[in-house]
Amino acid sequence: MIKVAVIGATGYAGAELVRILSGHPEAELTILTSRQYAGLRFDKVFPAMAGVVDLTCKALSADEICDHADFIFTALPHKLPMEIVPEFVRRGKKVVDLSADFRFSDVAKYEAFYQPHTAKDLLEKAVYGLCEVYADRIRDAAVVGNPGCYPTSVLLPLIPLLKSGMLDSRSIISDSKSGVSGAGRSPSLTVHFCEVTESFKAYKVAQHRHNPEIDEVLSREAGTPVNITFVPHLVPMSRGMLTTTYASLARKVRSQDIEDCLTAFYAGRHFVRITGNRPPDTLHVRGTNFCDIGFKLDEGNNRLILMSAIDNLVKGAAGQAVQNMNLMCGLKEDRGLGVRV
Amino acid sequence: MIKVAVIGATGYAGAELVRILSGHPEAELTILTSRQYAGLRFDKVFPAMAGVVDLTCKALSADEICDHADFIFTALPHKLPMEIVPEFVRRGKKVVDLSADFRFSDVAKYEAFYQPHTAKDLLEKAVYGLCEVYADRIRDAAVVGNPGCYPTSVLLPLIPLLKSGMLDSRSIISDSKSGVSGAGRSPSLTVHFCEVTESFKAYKVAQHRHNPEIDEVLSREAGTPVNITFVPHLVPMSRGMLTTTYASLARKVRSQDIEDCLTAFYAGRHFVRITGNRPPDTLHVRGTNFCDIGFKLDEGNNRLILMSAIDNLVKGAAGQAVQNMNLMCGLKEDRGLGVRV
Amino acid sequence: MIKVAVIGATGYAGAELVRILSGHPEAELTILTSRQYAGLRFDKVFPAMAGVVDLTCKALSADEICDHADFIFTALPHKLPMEIVPEFVRRGKKVVDLSADFRFSDVAKYEAFYQPHTAKDLLEKAVYGLCEVYADRIRDAAVVGNPGCYPTSVLLPLIPLLKSGMLDSRSIISDSKSGVSGAGRSPSLTVHFCEVTESFKAYKVAQHRHNPEIDEVLSREAGTPVNITFVPHLVPMSRGMLTTTYASLARKVRSQDIEDCLTAFYAGRHFVRITGNRPPDTLHVRGTNFCDIGFKLDEGNNRLILMSAIDNLVKGAAGQAVQNMNLMCGLKEDRGLGVRV
Amino acid sequence: MIKVAVIGATGYAGAELVRILSGHPEAELTILTSRQYAGLRFDKVFPAMAGVVDLTCKALSADEICDHADFIFTALPHKLPMEIVPEFVRRGKKVVDLSADFRFSDVAKYEAFYQPHTAKDLLEKAVYGLCEVYADRIRDAAVVGNPGCYPTSVLLPLIPLLKSGMLDSRSIISDSKSGVSGAGRSPSLTVHFCEVTESFKAYKVAQHRHNPEIDEVLSREAGTPVNITFVPHLVPMSRGMLTTTYASLARKVRSQDIEDCLTAFYAGRHFVRITGNRPPDTLHVRGTNFCDIGFKLDEGNNRLILMSAIDNLVKGAAGQAVQNMNLMCGLKEDRGLGVRV
Repeated sequence: MIKVAVIGATGYAGAELVRILSGHPEAELTILTSRQYAGLRFDKVFPAMAGVVDLTCKALSADEICDHADFIFTALPHKLPMEIVPEFVRRGKKVVDLSADFRFSDVAKYEAFYQPHTAKDLLEKAVYGLCEVYADRIRDAAVVGNPGCYPTSVLLPLIPLLKSGMLDSRSIISDSKSGVSGAGRSPSLTVHFCEVTESFKAYKVAQHRHNPEIDEVLSREAGTPVNITFVPHLVPMSRGMLTTTYASLARKVRSQDIEDCLTAFYAGRHFVRITGNRPPDTLHVRGTNFCDIGFKLDEGNNRLILMSAIDNLVKGAAGQAVQNMNLMCGLKEDRGLGVRV
Repeated sequence: MIKVAVIGATGYAGAELVRILSGHPEAELTILTSRQYAGLRFDKVFPAMAGVVDLTCKALSADEICDHADFIFTALPHKLPMEIVPEFVRRGKKVVDLSADFRFSDVAKYEAFYQPHTAKDLLEKAVYGLCEVYADRIRDAAVVGNPGCYPTSVLLPLIPLLKSGMLDSRSIISDSKSGVSGAGRSPSLTVHFCEVTESFKAYKVAQHRHNPEIDEVLSREAGTPVNITFVPHLVPMSRGMLTTTYASLARKVRSQDIEDCLTAFYAGRHFVRITGNRPPDTLHVRGTNFCDIGFKLDEGNNRLILMSAIDNLVKGAAGQAVQNMNLMCGLKEDRGLGVRV
Repeated sequence: MIKVAVIGATGYAGAELVRILSGHPEAELTILTSRQYAGLRFDKVFPAMAGVVDLTCKALSADEICDHADFIFTALPHKLPMEIVPEFVRRGKKVVDLSADFRFSDVAKYEAFYQPHTAKDLLEKAVYGLCEVYADRIRDAAVVGNPGCYPTSVLLPLIPLLKSGMLDSRSIISDSKSGVSGAGRSPSLTVHFCEVTESFKAYKVAQHRHNPEIDEVLSREAGTPVNITFVPHLVPMSRGMLTTTYASLARKVRSQDIEDCLTAFYAGRHFVRITGNRPPDTLHVRGTNFCDIGFKLDEGNNRLILMSAIDNLVKGAAGQAVQNMNLMCGLKEDRGLGVRV
Repeated sequence: MIKVAVIGATGYAGAELVRILSGHPEAELTILTSRQYAGLRFDKVFPAMAGVVDLTCKALSADEICDHADFIFTALPHKLPMEIVPEFVRRGKKVVDLSADFRFSDVAKYEAFYQPHTAKDLLEKAVYGLCEVYADRIRDAAVVGNPGCYPTSVLLPLIPLLKSGMLDSRSIISDSKSGVSGAGRSPSLTVHFCEVTESFKAYKVAQHRHNPEIDEVLSREAGTPVNITFVPHLVPMSRGMLTTTYASLARKVRSQDIEDCLTAFYAGRHFVRITGNRPPDTLHVRGTNFCDIGFKLDEGNNRLILMSAIDNLVKGAAGQAVQNMNLMCGLKEDRGLGVRV
């Protein structure tokens, strides 16, 4: 059994980690931390977990964590992880960080959109945890920067096609739609039920911090600078993310070519399902680690329309984090990530 | 008082017409028809209207309608209106048709996407009822083809900018999101609560029949053939439509130019509100005839992002229909279309 | 035109007052106050009202309010109104207060559930604004205590039947269900979209402060002490309140007797609709000032089941407040309270 | 591995069975039947299950089922199961039936509310599958009538207290609220998203067919005839059921007595969680087989208020059905019923 700590266990991503890990046959939760709820039983904060998890939330203590855990998930706001993860690594622990702190290769980009980076050495060694693309490197990593939810939904459909040269890399537009849990558990007017229901709107238009994260990975995979237009929207639902991506074709392709490219790239990868011309639906991936990808050629306009659906808290956060743990620990990729409601 | 008939009063658009017209100070509802509920009081079908509307649904009879009404709304599936509207016009009535039957200028286009047109003469005289663009022609029309909900939300932000020559007309992509009432009142798995909630998905990708309707109007206004990529999505909400439109800039423009172009074009038009860089929100137009338009320049990509929000049943259907009636009857455009919850 | 001030205009009840009054043909909004948003245009806080209301929120100043308004609505948390309303009344203004401060006849009861009352003289003269029951007294009142949302939904169905002696007054149980807007606009975990959607639960079980308010009115009307069991629940919807009330019958009655009692009591009252055995639905009263009342005899158990539906923000707050204003100003009761979406 | 058939696999309860059983470590799904979708792959009907279940829906054939399955779930409308289950039992199979056909002890009661019973001999041997109450008899049963969702939520909190003699059995009122999935997957206006959202209403008031089912079990457990007043309501959510039950106390009891009675009765039973005075929340049991029970004494009225929350599709249907299978097959009660999202 892998002894596991979840740091920041009472946000939505942290709580989802607890939920998944509590049913993982090879993992044993040993420590949960929470600044806000330290001293309180986890199942008082999340009564859904009564009878399932009996741990009490603790304040963050690196020593205590290192004494009791071999594998550590950090589900904290950016800036905090880069302050504590180096210590964990020094003491031989493996870490999946769910913030942006270990996602970028180019530290200057991180610093342009976040703040000065205080663990540059470790950042260099960290691996971007997009499992279906970087599994080989992830297996050997000590620190994985778990991808953002939007980047996961944008990158998985685009990477195979960009690599194949079928797409004009200057033409890419991703119109993303996210459920409200992506905004976190802290109360605010933005997430007030009465402001969300019957509301649909864009936000941080062409200025979301996931945009440079996406651009860096696409540029690496395409071998050429890529800057997409990225517009996120808020959907009146709890979980789920759908991204519709538009790209001009670089050459004449048929629908079958698109399908072949995607199915070949994701052959044998359990969590990516190619739905062909059937548009994927967030409801069909809810509570699961699947990413469903569909597409349609707009032949008159020589454009490809890609659609990808994930559960933002699972494949977009906690699920992919556990998938990363599985890879880093030599387990089967889908261990403990079975179907849920 | 204008004596008004609503044909097809028990679908969502028809019922919304009844609701609006029941409070219109210059209109008197005299006849409501419904194939499905003929013989039943309207307020038995829509108990919300008890104490407000006391009419009984009738079967469709052209004679009866012409005897009792001067102004007729047809809220029927396409094909039916072109069979009955000519008779109404012959008898001197004015008509706003909410189907596609009188929306197209090019009958061939209509026939390519619907079926043979059986009232071509009248189609030629009909006016496309996009009030803020065609008010002058609407004032003199006997028959108005009320725009589709998607076209309304796509056309209003685009037309001023296309006419100004700021946009590359070959680059336009509209990613639209609609509430479920747009799918109509007939029961089906598509509108089942349990299939809609927590679901977000695209449908009729690049093949929706509103696409040619949009293209025809844009081509006319731009003076050049325009074919946009159009992808509608279903949002888990009852009312509301948001369209995010992407277009490359044809020349260097500043954010202020965009705002100036939009505000100049819609100066004095009560129902279009320019929100600047603040993204419009369907919740803010719910139950109203407003179209809110916002925008953002993605300068790095030389692209404009337009966002427009309407209530699909009001500005996207019944509200615009009443606005058309107001224009056709010489009333103030916003008569009877005051703010609602 | 009545010059009207809304104090506390940016909570949900206050904003709903603004919305209703902005369309009221005999009222002119002259002052809106908001502690939180003083200095900001109202339509920046509620963009839905752009083009409809052009006032700027002010800080509360009794002098300024009295200079510009003849009729004042106070939509503030309890305790504040009793500090400022006496001054308004002294200066000849009429006031509808939406808090609990002027609802109780028995000051001891108020003080037991809230805090010491600092305007007892005025409290004695204030009238409980349940329009369909106390219209005569309301017409002459200077200060009206607008009923709580739950009390409105509980009292309207019960009062006629209690007065008729058909019910055992010791047996009454009201199981109420409210939309989330009843919890107010302040952000908290309770109203977080992700905590509300798919959630249904009771709260403040048998200890809600609307319970003594209900009991006092029922006791007065029944002529005997009445203490009901009252359990409120939170429904995953924005607006709407449904109360299911159970009471044992004091004597043998038929279904028709119930219907006769209710229809006789509410004869000529536009805003109460008796639906007979058809259960009322919150959707049918949404955005309106209606209270729909249905019922069913459970003959085997000699029990009556009453069901009442209101929009908690309209008949349960702002709508009834305007109805009270209409009565106090000699206007027709339903003036400015027409049907909305 | 137990070879399992699900008959009627494409309704909501059937599909939930498939979902749970697909992850059950001791069960192997061998046959799924569906009248509507025979010949179609199950994952075409429920794309969520792609990559998880690869069976094709079959038409119902008793021979084929008996050849391939040892354990059979029938998730069909009542009347059909009593026609086919006897054959299965004759051939040595064990059956859990999710309809009402094998729930009643008193065949006359069944026939009064449903239709003539055609398998009376088997009905006599069938066991009512309320696991926490009848586990001993269930272990030896060949046929279990799986309880209705409403009865499960009403019976679990009431039975211990009724048996203890604390409650006046003539005073019981259950006010139940159910998510929409309880209405089934067939399209109808009742489950149309636009008719459900912002709607809350009662239905089948005091005449739901779960009422006699509840009464029969309560009468048996109380040892005296019990007829409760039962009113179901529809909540705008997909899954979840909350029942608020009111009962007069037969004698003076303290809050602690209630808690002791409940905790003693359910000691060691994983799926019943007593939440004390904290009201249970449907969100906390969503996707799980838990029943959360809370309570509050209304001392002034000498009444007890019980609240119970379940997921109507899990503990109220498929989950309890699998729990019954576990008991009937000698497995641990919670096998395959781990926590889900």
